[in-house]
Amino acid sequence: MIQTSKEIWLPDNRTQPRLVIIGAGFAGIELAKKLKNAPVNVVLVDQNNFHQFPPLFYQVATSGLEPDAISFPVRKLFKGYRNFFFVMAEVQHIDSQQQQLITDGGYLSYDYLVIATGSVTNFYGLQEVATHAIGLKSLKEAIDLRSLILENLEKAAITADEQERHLLTNVAIVGGGPAGVEMAGALAEYKNYVLPKDYPYLCDATMAVYLIEAGERLLPAMSAAASAATLRDLRRMGVTVLLQTQVKSYDGKTVYLAGNRTLAAATLVWTAGVKGACPSGIKEEAYATARRIKVDQYSRVSGYRNIFAIGDVAGMISERYPFGHPMVAPVAIQQGHHLAANLQRLLAGEELKPFVYRDKGALATIGKKRAVADLGRWHFKGFFAWIIWSTVHLLSIIGFRNKIVVGINWLISYLTYDKANRLIIRRYRNANTK
Amino acid sequence: MIQTSKEIWLPDNRTQPRLVIIGAGFAGIELAKKLKNAPVNVVLVDQNNFHQFPPLFYQVATSGLEPDAISFPVRKLFKGYRNFFFVMAEVQHIDSQQQQLITDGGYLSYDYLVIATGSVTNFYGLQEVATHAIGLKSLKEAIDLRSLILENLEKAAITADEQERHLLTNVAIVGGGPAGVEMAGALAEYKNYVLPKDYPYLCDATMAVYLIEAGERLLPAMSAAASAATLRDLRRMGVTVLLQTQVKSYDGKTVYLAGNRTLAAATLVWTAGVKGACPSGIKEEAYATARRIKVDQYSRVSGYRNIFAIGDVAGMISERYPFGHPMVAPVAIQQGHHLAANLQRLLAGEELKPFVYRDKGALATIGKKRAVADLGRWHFKGFFAWIIWSTVHLLSIIGFRNKIVVGINWLISYLTYDKANRLIIRRYRNANTK
Repeated sequence: MIQTSKEIWLPDNRTQPRLVIIGAGFAGIELAKKLKNAPVNVVLVDQNNFHQFPPLFYQVATSGLEPDAISFPVRKLFKGYRNFFFVMAEVQHIDSQQQQLITDGGYLSYDYLVIATGSVTNFYGLQEVATHAIGLKSLKEAIDLRSLILENLEKAAITADEQERHLLTNVAIVGGGPAGVEMAGALAEYKNYVLPKDYPYLCDATMAVYLIEAGERLLPAMSAAASAATLRDLRRMGVTVLLQTQVKSYDGKTVYLAGNRTLAAATLVWTAGVKGACPSGIKEEAYATARRIKVDQYSRVSGYRNIFAIGDVAGMISERYPFGHPMVAPVAIQQGHHLAANLQRLLAGEELKPFVYRDKGALATIGKKRAVADLGRWHFKGFFAWIIWSTVHLLSIIGFRNKIVVGINWLISYLTYDKANRLIIRRYRNANTK
Repeated sequence: MIQTSKEIWLPDNRTQPRLVIIGAGFAGIELAKKLKNAPVNVVLVDQNNFHQFPPLFYQVATSGLEPDAISFPVRKLFKGYRNFFFVMAEVQHIDSQQQQLITDGGYLSYDYLVIATGSVTNFYGLQEVATHAIGLKSLKEAIDLRSLILENLEKAAITADEQERHLLTNVAIVGGGPAGVEMAGALAEYKNYVLPKDYPYLCDATMAVYLIEAGERLLPAMSAAASAATLRDLRRMGVTVLLQTQVKSYDGKTVYLAGNRTLAAATLVWTAGVKGACPSGIKEEAYATARRIKVDQYSRVSGYRNIFAIGDVAGMISERYPFGHPMVAPVAIQQGHHLAANLQRLLAGEELKPFVYRDKGALATIGKKRAVADLGRWHFKGFFAWIIWSTVHLLSIIGFRNKIVVGINWLISYLTYDKANRLIIRRYRNANTK
């Protein structure tokens, strides 16, 4: 499978150094954009031909939006950049000795390498959960999740067995962070507004939505006021929130909780943890907790001269963040931005400047007209926070067409309480759900 | 796999006869809609949970539209119908003795059965072509086609071998009917307007678009004037049209034509033929040419009392159509409409009326501001025909949201010459293209 024999051909001018960025996420895109016209050839490598917007994956999973509304083609994003080159390939190995990447499309040499590969779901070694649960860290997972939920509803609609009907319609979400909270809220809205219309014969009692959090409160990274408002809103919307509850195992049908409790649910969404997603080749000593790569204040990977890491995969420790910076979009964007400036300083022989994160606050939405926002000393909840949330997200989505499509979908949903077309384009086949 | 042991449960009232319709295409949907409040329980069975709009599959394949824009959820379509029930399942066998369908979700009994299963690609026994080519008869095929074309372009962009680059970018389309013509036109537009921007380093000479037709002219079902205009327009747009040319074989790289000619193309789109798509169980004597099921003027399947067939799968012969009615949407819709009235007559003990097709004409688009229309004695081409084409299609797409999304996409494409987000959501994996 690994075509080490073939070099990836690029029409770049090798009189300039070649900077290869792995990953077209927030960090990689920001870095490449800010290097426009810099004296360096930028090669961006990603397994997908598009940039995606993870904050809205949960809306794809719950039929609120289609994948294309929150994705943008990389090549279009860099239209007219003379020093930019894109390679659609999966990086399998980093050979820092040869200064080469091994990919499924051939090998690629670099002068400078930036690892911006983001993060993947962390199941913390729970093998059975990993087999049967679905994460929410990629468009593919979001689509799989939607298919599975809808397929299970279709199966429930044609079974006479009431117990099976409950099992098939119930959804358990593990993890009380923003992803889990937003997923639970969107599913509760689906249950309250769409289910009764689409499945009039599935009685209201079906489809329990469970939100399971191991800690003491939801949204632990936000203010206590935001946590309390979120808990109250989700419960009002019909979500069963279980705090201080640990998931031990899951077999595709039964969720095993600590203390010998169980829940029946044919769908388990796992948002309880993430870890760095780096291809092999970086030496083991360079890894910090949660498989993040240790970097200094200049994003340089520990023990390497010409390899950098930014975004979720980078474990940058500072006085304010002794366990690493938060794995969120603003950190990734700011690190990409900052590294672009530092790389230009490096190429010019100037002194590098250390990275300082400017935390502008945190937002989470629970549902229509319901959100929480911590902006510095200011805390908002309810309608105003929801307007802030909607505005910030709409402005952050790349592309004019995408903004319009997302805006129209949100407007129609707002007016009709309906969701977008809930299509199962490809069935989710899993030996355990058959 | 076949769960014959389990009956599909439905909350219908069995004091009324149960009519089962297989297929949520134009014919099945129209029939079910027209039976609203009729003294019969209507059960619609389809393997997908949505109705789709095949006339625009080629736009999905060429990144003009996303699948959701031309699909509509079946359950939403029949919201509020008291005598309507939906089953998402694949029908594997019709057991006319037991009056049961065998599906992958269990068995389902019927009093009346309507087969509205449409048609699938007909490769006329060319096994190697069937293995390597892709048809354009389902959303899945349209998405596969898009993925394959874009993946091949991405591969071409990183290869130094000029011959391989040509092979990877070339696309051959077989069949000069509306599907082939519209696909060729849309690909030519992609090549002319999007390719130079997305792949500035793939020289203009790359990506040949071939349209191969065995007969003497394109659009053989339309007027000679329409054929001539289409041929001229496609050639002007850069499509290589090969008439009176038969495809003999295809190995994933080389298209073998009659007369020992060959073409290099890593993508082959096959629109050269269709055949009826009926589950097993109907006796062989009931099949006509192209695997269509023989029906009388009342859509009743030859040799059966309570089984009907409508749309593409039905081979209804009349004086005007000695080889069966055309396999197009208007026939399907009119047959669905007509059968609904006849079934109500049947249930009331009245006499049935024979079906008469009202041909309103034919339309095909070649590209922006280019189309042909035969409407009775009137023939249009160019801008006016294109306006008719756009209006008819926009009005025919089900759903307010869909009309808006398609309209906006068309408007933006019209203004910018750009396509929608050309995403490869899932790579098209085929052993022969690796």
